[in-house]
This record gives sequence, structure tokens and C-alpha cells, in this order.
Amino acid sequence: MNDKRLHIEVCFTPGEYQYFKDEFDIVVVIDVLRATSAICAAFDNGIKSIIPVTTVEEAMEYKKKGFLAGAERKGKIVEGFDFGNSPFTYMNKDFLGKEVVLTTTNGTKSLDIAKDAETVIVASFLNLNSVSLWLSQQNKNVLCLCSGWQDKFNLEDTICAGAICDFLINTGYFTSVEDSSIAAKYLYLSAKDNYMGYLKSSSHRRRLKNLNLNEDIKYCLTPNQTNVIPILKDGKLVQL
Amino acid sequence: MNDKRLHIEVCFTPGEYQYFKDEFDIVVVIDVLRATSAICAAFDNGIKSIIPVTTVEEAMEYKKKGFLAGAERKGKIVEGFDFGNSPFTYMNKDFLGKEVVLTTTNGTKSLDIAKDAETVIVASFLNLNSVSLWLSQQNKNVLCLCSGWQDKFNLEDTICAGAICDFLINTGYFTSVEDSSIAAKYLYLSAKDNYMGYLKSSSHRRRLKNLNLNEDIKYCLTPNQTNVIPILKDGKLVQL
Repeated sequence: MNDKRLHIEVCFTPGEYQYFKDEFDIVVVIDVLRATSAICAAFDNGIKSIIPVTTVEEAMEYKKKGFLAGAERKGKIVEGFDFGNSPFTYMNKDFLGKEVVLTTTNGTKSLDIAKDAETVIVASFLNLNSVSLWLSQQNKNVLCLCSGWQDKFNLEDTICAGAICDFLINTGYFTSVEDSSIAAKYLYLSAKDNYMGYLKSSSHRRRLKNLNLNEDIKYCLTPNQTNVIPILKDGKLVQL
Repeated sequence: MNDKRLHIEVCFTPGEYQYFKDEFDIVVVIDVLRATSAICAAFDNGIKSIIPVTTVEEAMEYKKKGFLAGAERKGKIVEGFDFGNSPFTYMNKDFLGKEVVLTTTNGTKSLDIAKDAETVIVASFLNLNSVSLWLSQQNKNVLCLCSGWQDKFNLEDTICAGAICDFLINTGYFTSVEDSSIAAKYLYLSAKDNYMGYLKSSSHRRRLKNLNLNEDIKYCLTPNQTNVIPILKDGKLVQL
């Protein structure tokens, strides 16, 4: 076999990243509900940069130094913080041009484990086409890293990753050989006409619905609301 | 919520079993290509018992003691052994009524990590209906443990697990709440009319096809060829 196509593959959880990481130039971090959606919304609303941190303690240290710092755990804003990972937080003039510190249950953990990759970008349904188009122009092997939910597989991240696979495979320059990528693409194709309906029974949607976050969910599952591509540079997310 | 239905869930890889294991009474170990298919074929052909072992060294020790011992790694029979995990191996009078020792790349590893569960049984497409019907009568929470491929997700095990989910959910007495289980069921529903076609691009099918094991694949993907249900008792697989 002499297949010179580039690879677009999907890693379902941060725990499995160790089996993939050495073969890819670009890692696309995905946490649809809600960290990477919130990060996209933040840049779309004129934030300057985001410092992702893994622990609540780190976020609190930044807060004490005067930074705007947010923290989310299990879907809720952590006590002592003013915001978490709702995308609507950032639609507010107080954030314009600011640097923000953020820690979330799953998304900032993925950013941390991927940080040594050559290039790390952030994707969600919100910037799906923009990310896919940019990836198609890089001539690099791409891994979508789904954040999952506490190290378990999660449906919405996988479908978002499957959408990126589908776009890149359709260019003719990419292929997927891992079963996880093939499954992600299959799941995307059966979900794409009705994300809300398809994800009705997903565990995280139920979790957030119980927290009265239905507006967040609708927003996060609506594709192509922005062209921003957040990228990790020296430990900070900035706009590409 | 006061949902008293039993759970049928799916764990995609042995590595994720740690996040599931405490909540289930019955674990169904699945390694479609080919360990659990071979185990079903062996019992269907009158084998007495199978001792699953995790290392080639253990299998060799048994062989030196005079046991019939098989070993497979990466799809091939390990040097020094006469058989691996082809189901056709066991369609042979030499195995009738015998006790066999077996180690395989993925399947015997899953059996080992699940061994402390209350009940451990073996499933494949070969005994799909028989296993599903039996599970529906036990009044227990069920976890399907897919063996995957070297700790990565694998499509054929997931589809087999999805078939068991679909059967049990349709009884009305079971529900799936994990996203992995929901995805497995979706993948099964889109694969069920043509397993061979659906799995054409799967990584393990390609791997085995390259080893000229197409006949094994066809056999392993043909549902309901036997009613046997292999069960783990005191470290040995026997027929239920």
C-alpha cells in the first residue's frame, strides 16, 4: 500500500491520548459542552487571551493576583469564582480585550495533556467550518482529541470530531484508518441533520439540562457561528 | 427520576473498565475478531473447558505439562504453538472433550481484568441471540466489555455490544445511560443489515485480511451459529 494521504484521526478520551500522540502534527481539542464552545465564543466577543489551567487552586492564585478567573466543575461554577464555562459569560463588555484564566472539568485537562504537540487548536460546533477549512490547508496529520466526561467517551465531542473527519476526507487529501475515527464519522453522518434530537439522550446533555443549562446546550450545538480559531501559544490561547 | 430499569452499558476498551466495574453484576466479554468467536466455536464443537491465560509464558508452561495450548499475538500463531485463535481450529476431533489453554492479544486480557465480577460470560456474533435472551432473564445490571485492539476502540466489538443493548432495551426492562452505550447501539443499527460491508474499512478487518484470514472474518461476522454461552468458573471457561 502506498497511500500518501494525510491522516485525520479521532481520540475519544484524554486517557487514550498516549496511544496516539506521537503520530500527529496538529491536535484539535474538542469539548463541545461547554469549554471549547465557551473559548470560541470568548474570542468571537473580543477577548484577548485565555490561560487554561488544570486545577481550581491555580485559577484561584491568578484571581488573587487580579486576573479575571473562571472555574467550572461538574457543570457548575466553583464557589469563590464569578464565572465558569457558559459561552454567554463572554458576551459582556467587561471581557473585551482582556486576558482570562479558566479551569474546567474536562476541556482544560485536554489542553494540558496536548500542550507538547507541534500545534494545538480549539474546535467546537461554533467554528466547525472555519477549523475544517484551515486544517485542509496545512498539509499536516491531524488528531481530534475529544475531552469526554471524566475520562469516559462522550457523544457530542465525537460527533464534532466526526464532522471534521468527514470534511477533510471529502477533500481527497485525508484518510482515517483508526476505528475510532471511522465510528466518529458514522455517528456524525447519522446525527448531522438534527444534533439536538440525536443528542437528546446523551449523558452530558441530561446533566446540563438538569442544571437548567438548555440555552447553553442549544447555543453550543449550533454550527458555524464564528470564524475564530483559538490556538495555544506559550501556554496561552490566542486567536490565530 | 425513579427509573427502575436495569442497566445495559458498554465499555469500549479494557483500559476504561476501571471507570465502570463497580456497578455491574454481569460482565460480557467480547472480542469478535477472533478470541471470543473462537471460544464460542470451541464449545459448539464439544470442547470441555478453556483456561484463559494472559501471557505466552504461562501458555508455554501449560504446554510443557502436556496441555493442549494455543497462543496468538497480533493476529498470528506464536512460534512454538500449534494453534492460535482461529475458530476453525476447534472443528477437529482432537479437541473433543478436552481442556485447552489459550492466550490472545486482546480477548484473554479482557477476561483477566473482568475475572472478579460476580458473573463473566463470553459473547460474539456467533452466540448473540442466545446470550441476549439469557441476559434478559437474569434481572441483573450488565456491562459489555469490548476487548478493542491494544487498548484502542474497535468497531466490530462495539457493534456486537450494541446489538446486545438493542435487544435488552427492546425488552422494556433495560436502559442505557452512558454515551458509549448509546453510540454502540447507533453503530449497531446502521451496521446490522450488512456487517461485512460496514466493517470493510475497520482496522482489524484490514489487519486480518492482510494475513489471509478472510474466511475467519466471514465466519466471525455471521450471527447466531450456536446457542452455547461460555462462562468463567474458578478461572476456567466452561459451558453454562
